[in-house]
Amino acid sequence: MTVRISNSYSWQEKARWAKDKRDASLAKVEPKLVGIPAADSLPLSSQDMPKAILTPRELEITERYTITELLSLLRQRDITVEEVTRAFLRRAALAQAATNCLTELLWDEAIERARYLDSLPEPRGSLFGLPISTKEHQGMVGSNITTSASLVAWVGKEHGSNLLFDTFWQQGCVFYARTSQPQAIMHLETHSNVFGRTVNPYNRELTPGGSTGGESALLGMRGSILGVGSDIGGSIRCPAAHTGVYGFKPTTKRIATTGSRAAGQGKETISGCAGPMSVDREGLEIFMKAALSAKPWRVEPSLTTKEWTPHSFTKPLKIAVQWWDGVVQPHPPMTRALREVAEACRKAGMEVVDWNCEDLDHKKGWDILSALYWPDGGKEILGLMAESGEPILPLTRFILHEQPTVKELSQHELWKLCVERDAYRARYAQAWSNTGKDEDDEVDIILCPPSFGAATPHDQSRYWGYTSQWNLLDYPAVVFPVTTVDPVQDVKDLSYTPKNDEDRFVYDMYSPETFKNAPVSLQIVGRRQQDEKVLAALAEVERAMGRK
Amino acid sequence: MTVRISNSYSWQEKARWAKDKRDASLAKVEPKLVGIPAADSLPLSSQDMPKAILTPRELEITERYTITELLSLLRQRDITVEEVTRAFLRRAALAQAATNCLTELLWDEAIERARYLDSLPEPRGSLFGLPISTKEHQGMVGSNITTSASLVAWVGKEHGSNLLFDTFWQQGCVFYARTSQPQAIMHLETHSNVFGRTVNPYNRELTPGGSTGGESALLGMRGSILGVGSDIGGSIRCPAAHTGVYGFKPTTKRIATTGSRAAGQGKETISGCAGPMSVDREGLEIFMKAALSAKPWRVEPSLTTKEWTPHSFTKPLKIAVQWWDGVVQPHPPMTRALREVAEACRKAGMEVVDWNCEDLDHKKGWDILSALYWPDGGKEILGLMAESGEPILPLTRFILHEQPTVKELSQHELWKLCVERDAYRARYAQAWSNTGKDEDDEVDIILCPPSFGAATPHDQSRYWGYTSQWNLLDYPAVVFPVTTVDPVQDVKDLSYTPKNDEDRFVYDMYSPETFKNAPVSLQIVGRRQQDEKVLAALAEVERAMGRK
Repeated sequence: MTVRISNSYSWQEKARWAKDKRDASLAKVEPKLVGIPAADSLPLSSQDMPKAILTPRELEITERYTITELLSLLRQRDITVEEVTRAFLRRAALAQAATNCLTELLWDEAIERARYLDSLPEPRGSLFGLPISTKEHQGMVGSNITTSASLVAWVGKEHGSNLLFDTFWQQGCVFYARTSQPQAIMHLETHSNVFGRTVNPYNRELTPGGSTGGESALLGMRGSILGVGSDIGGSIRCPAAHTGVYGFKPTTKRIATTGSRAAGQGKETISGCAGPMSVDREGLEIFMKAALSAKPWRVEPSLTTKEWTPHSFTKPLKIAVQWWDGVVQPHPPMTRALREVAEACRKAGMEVVDWNCEDLDHKKGWDILSALYWPDGGKEILGLMAESGEPILPLTRFILHEQPTVKELSQHELWKLCVERDAYRARYAQAWSNTGKDEDDEVDIILCPPSFGAATPHDQSRYWGYTSQWNLLDYPAVVFPVTTVDPVQDVKDLSYTPKNDEDRFVYDMYSPETFKNAPVSLQIVGRRQQDEKVLAALAEVERAMGRK
Repeated sequence: MTVRISNSYSWQEKARWAKDKRDASLAKVEPKLVGIPAADSLPLSSQDMPKAILTPRELEITERYTITELLSLLRQRDITVEEVTRAFLRRAALAQAATNCLTELLWDEAIERARYLDSLPEPRGSLFGLPISTKEHQGMVGSNITTSASLVAWVGKEHGSNLLFDTFWQQGCVFYARTSQPQAIMHLETHSNVFGRTVNPYNRELTPGGSTGGESALLGMRGSILGVGSDIGGSIRCPAAHTGVYGFKPTTKRIATTGSRAAGQGKETISGCAGPMSVDREGLEIFMKAALSAKPWRVEPSLTTKEWTPHSFTKPLKIAVQWWDGVVQPHPPMTRALREVAEACRKAGMEVVDWNCEDLDHKKGWDILSALYWPDGGKEILGLMAESGEPILPLTRFILHEQPTVKELSQHELWKLCVERDAYRARYAQAWSNTGKDEDDEVDIILCPPSFGAATPHDQSRYWGYTSQWNLLDYPAVVFPVTTVDPVQDVKDLSYTPKNDEDRFVYDMYSPETFKNAPVSLQIVGRRQQDEKVLAALAEVERAMGRK
């Protein structure tokens, strides 16, 4: 049953309605969570909270197993779906208390689903019994589902199911938690007028990234082990990087979009795409396999007709390291992470070269991309915000009003920009091909930062280039955790002279103490449509790093 | 050396310049063609002209071999490239005299190229020595190449090479003839202010179709055996059908577009694509393999990353026959062709069902498509025509001014239309899936008309639905010859009552005598990205028809 909200509500009342709905869903948690500090005395890092509040069994279920292992236990019926579901429901509720990452806990629905799965004579589906969390703007099975996509104007808007989620459902998963995203779903942080601000589970003074920051905070608390994000400028990878989890942005047209809700429906200049966020690497591939198992192109015919086709390397990787993007110099811990991983790869016998991209003009790429995000000059989204009267938040202003490229385009201006985009993509492809004497000799992947540094202090995520570049190019990209900020090793380079305003902004932001202990991650990028190769390369790189 | 033309020229002078250039290229033919009737006393059908005018050896070279056989002779050096090239050059010149199909004969360039290939110690490339003709708007290697895309404003405009043609060049082909297309490249006939009207080699009172009608006329004269067309509404398939040759429109993003010239660059609502037109079925696959051999996605990264991957059927085909499209009833010879082929397939053990598409509303599809052709309301193309002062031809007026859907769209109107397009595509995909209890059981292909009938009298090609539907859906489709119009068998159904204005227009057009002996072809359509399956199905169907 959906409670209809009145059109006469002020924006604050609508937001209140949404929060009340969320709070009511959290009130169902049984047993209650005991021992959570008051909101104003929460610790800087939330990492120690679970072991103080959850039971040893809950900790075991939510922490001890990889996704593969947990799936195996579930399939063998060594553990019930209900027990797993309850553990993650409670841990998600705890994550909400710590980071404000949820828009709704699906307590009743998840337990009902778990019991149904437990009642089956045989386990069924590749995700049998696995709890999956999701960014709120995706609809799903369930009669009570509404999505606002973090717009006050859409609070309480009913939302049917969608193709991707139906596939996961058919594969036996349990949906149990829905997570926050920022206003317009277009910040690399997570702050909306509906649900307020989500914070980083390692340091509440930092952002968990965005726009899938509710997911990343939840995963960073292990209140989830596999979640669904979406990415049009970094929205899977940035938050995954900022909380030390894995995140994969596939090539567009690989994963179904049918049924998801966001502004800009029908705009095809630059597309977003859904993808996995996961506490371990295997989760990414499990997600992709499951997502493609139903052959979604048979329902959404613009998708690429290709099943998941694992890639194997027949010789050591050739890796190009992008030490910087020619615009903004990464912070010291990021550069250290690059150095450490490059060195490990070299030691493992891989060829490591530099990706010198100054000539490729990433700044120009951003100018094209930022204009193509809003070919209507932002009219639709501004109209939706005006409709409810909600204020425009600073990072919305940044991406809409502070980009000189953003304006309503005529059809001919749009065509011209699409031609520029395609020429830019062609130039980049050529540069990639030029890294070898033939295809066999060229670099397999680019290793690069997923951000200029670790998670930023709030409202400071004003440079998208390290992720958005790969959206412009539509290259698949995966983020993986590498290290944490160490004030001893990661001292500020006081001799550095910033090259431009953005570089200065980023340079000035850095001091080791601000970011202490924050996760630092890297990104692996492949050529367009080489999704499987990117995940295979990640496995190689992690093995070189001494991981299994 | 490109002769620059003066900006002060009238449109007639610019067109004259282009025709003079063409005529100068034809004047090089050696030995001269002897015995061509005066322009005003050309026979109705041009089919008997070659044997009256060409040498027995030229007839042998241009008629006796399949493309595969000719390639084999060339590769074995049983015949020189130069001899083959000269034979096709002379036959192309003859085709020009008969049908007005050429914009330029590349006499010197082709012979130079042939001699170079003959001088190689070893034959090289899958197209070694094969003469290939092309629609004019594609550029190619050569210092003297200009393309007008049949716009007077672009007459004399220099044009560099392009990716597809470079690939064919690397595979050893010989470019020797460039062919006509209509104004705006948006008629299903071939008439421009630059080169006038191209006529059908079977009946000069009928059109050879369009927009790749120069190619189809040339192929219909065997002045070429393999040509390059392009198709955004039927422009490969309609002309192939009207002259009894093969034509294949692949799924978009399969064949490189880099470097081709047409209006609407950067428009991505509906895309055109290049593809083969050929005198035999094998030519289609030879073209596709060669086109993809260079992995064009490495240069043009929006292309699908997929080599040509031949398909094999493991059980008899399941074919859905579209007897009509719910809008316009095909002429009697077309219905007979469907009946004959369906019967042959049934006899060969295939399952034949009906494709009832009334509920799928092809008219609605046309409304979406025709609007998406011109989201600028046609401003660009109208501006280009106004620039030179050339008159707007009747079929340009038809597609631009007589479609009530065509208007300049705001970005939001464009988005809305793209959403409608995607919903339409999804509905169609669902209908296809519904033809079977699962993927294995569904229909493999749709067998349908490529037009309401045989080639129409001039300026009567005012219904695109039988080809354009598959552009809207982006389904691969191939056209193949079946029969010819037979006044005895194909009598007019005098009892038929047309269902709507378009149906009446088409019904009224038919009389068996008008179309007597004109080729009648059919079309095979597959689901999106099933290019290889469509060509494999064609082979099965032709075998069922008793062809090899």
